[in-house]
Amino acid sequence: MKSIPVVRAEAEMRELTGRWRRKGLTIGLVPTMGALHRGHLSLVELALRRARRVVVSVFVNPAQFGPGEDLDNYPRDLEGDTVLVAEAGGHAVFSPPPEEIYPPEHSTKVVVNNLTGTLCGAYRPGHFDGVTTVCSILFGIVGPDLAVFGRKDAQQLAVIRRMVRDLHMNVEIVQGDIVRENDGLAMSSRNAYLDPGERRDAALIHRAMLAAEEAVKGGERNAERIISMVSAIIESSPLARVQYVSLVDPHSLQPVPALNPTGLLAVAVYFGGTRLIDNTILTSGSQEED
Amino acid sequence: MKSIPVVRAEAEMRELTGRWRRKGLTIGLVPTMGALHRGHLSLVELALRRARRVVVSVFVNPAQFGPGEDLDNYPRDLEGDTVLVAEAGGHAVFSPPPEEIYPPEHSTKVVVNNLTGTLCGAYRPGHFDGVTTVCSILFGIVGPDLAVFGRKDAQQLAVIRRMVRDLHMNVEIVQGDIVRENDGLAMSSRNAYLDPGERRDAALIHRAMLAAEEAVKGGERNAERIISMVSAIIESSPLARVQYVSLVDPHSLQPVPALNPTGLLAVAVYFGGTRLIDNTILTSGSQEED
Repeated sequence: MKSIPVVRAEAEMRELTGRWRRKGLTIGLVPTMGALHRGHLSLVELALRRARRVVVSVFVNPAQFGPGEDLDNYPRDLEGDTVLVAEAGGHAVFSPPPEEIYPPEHSTKVVVNNLTGTLCGAYRPGHFDGVTTVCSILFGIVGPDLAVFGRKDAQQLAVIRRMVRDLHMNVEIVQGDIVRENDGLAMSSRNAYLDPGERRDAALIHRAMLAAEEAVKGGERNAERIISMVSAIIESSPLARVQYVSLVDPHSLQPVPALNPTGLLAVAVYFGGTRLIDNTILTSGSQEED
Repeated sequence: MKSIPVVRAEAEMRELTGRWRRKGLTIGLVPTMGALHRGHLSLVELALRRARRVVVSVFVNPAQFGPGEDLDNYPRDLEGDTVLVAEAGGHAVFSPPPEEIYPPEHSTKVVVNNLTGTLCGAYRPGHFDGVTTVCSILFGIVGPDLAVFGRKDAQQLAVIRRMVRDLHMNVEIVQGDIVRENDGLAMSSRNAYLDPGERRDAALIHRAMLAAEEAVKGGERNAERIISMVSAIIESSPLARVQYVSLVDPHSLQPVPALNPTGLLAVAVYFGGTRLIDNTILTSGSQEED
């Protein structure tokens, strides 16, 4: 199998991308926290369709975990990840130690306001500051022409897009689809935490969202009723604890009272100590504006 | 005289720098708020010694002015500025309208903590967030190899350096010296606000700092005594109102009780409604550490 470099040091990464750039090769970046699954690999494939060289960063970013979250337990398997990236056709893994990214007296943050107060942002204060800061840093080091993010974390994608627009960063943000297990559960590195019962019931999340789509096809537009239905389906499992079910404007991420004509339905659910998220865009058949 | 482009649109700026970059020409950026004087032009000359192409940005950045500050009255003379940049050998002026830099719903900030609570930062809340945000944006658009900042605003220079380090930005920060009028007053676009009496007495700022340097040569190391002396000299003018005189660690910008062995002496003084700043590095003869 093709062997690809696993780069730890910033200087080495810059050296490699500099060499590619001088040859006129475009560069795609897929930022990840590792523990790669088919969802990540679909992002690598998407990057490969758009760029001549693809770097996958594997960095469990301490700045985006809150106190009591799963930083210490987050699954890590750099060797396995590297094999998967190589098999998918990626050209390098960038896996810096935390002190390379955050040197002593690190004191700069990139903060996106207005998109970060709802959905996950309401429950994970500081999380998106950590995400935008580390993405700025990764963009600074790798200098990619494009970066690919999955739309499973829809808020993250919106926040990153806003940051790139607002700071006039010279990078295109490309959106990858959600990849699902056979029973519909969105792929996530955190699925590995689920015990067999939780794993089985976690499929209810997607089932609830399909039911919402069906209801909308049937004419439903009311946010409150859609949210109640989705919550009820998920909470039909005694193992599920819904953190939020929200219907928001896909642009502003602010709650909407009804589809008009689209809305982002997003959910966060705990199964035991494992927090899972998922989302779908709902579009009512009628395109009329209120 | 050589005519140089005055670029208003981001896309046009990217086009120009992209052309230079493809030719292998290095790019220097001198960010300014216009109303250029010899201090700015010395930065252009410094940039020209280090880069093959030099862009001077002229942008009166609303985000770095507080309520009640002089945003509306800040001197503007784009035509005159362009002549000066061309004469100095610069290659382009970038002067975007505010809505090009801050599109509707702009909601991203770059924030440096820890260096912004003292000196000017203590009196101008949000000022440095505005500075770091606009510099990130200008770096994003121009993509310079190096950017030149004068050391008259020593805190700005320290904050920008910290931002570039912390976000791993691919730009070298180059420091330019303070350029002074014949009587020692540091050049500033705001000097134009001074009436003749204020202009005459404003020279006391530099005179006070020279006196501090002399005292240090004579063995003085105590911060309180140095600060008292500097304040007294400046306040010998009834037109002067000292905002602060501080002796801080040049790295952390935190106040120090004594030189050990160096300290940044920084002052902000109002003459009428005009706020002037200046600074100098004091180094005691003794190099011993406490």
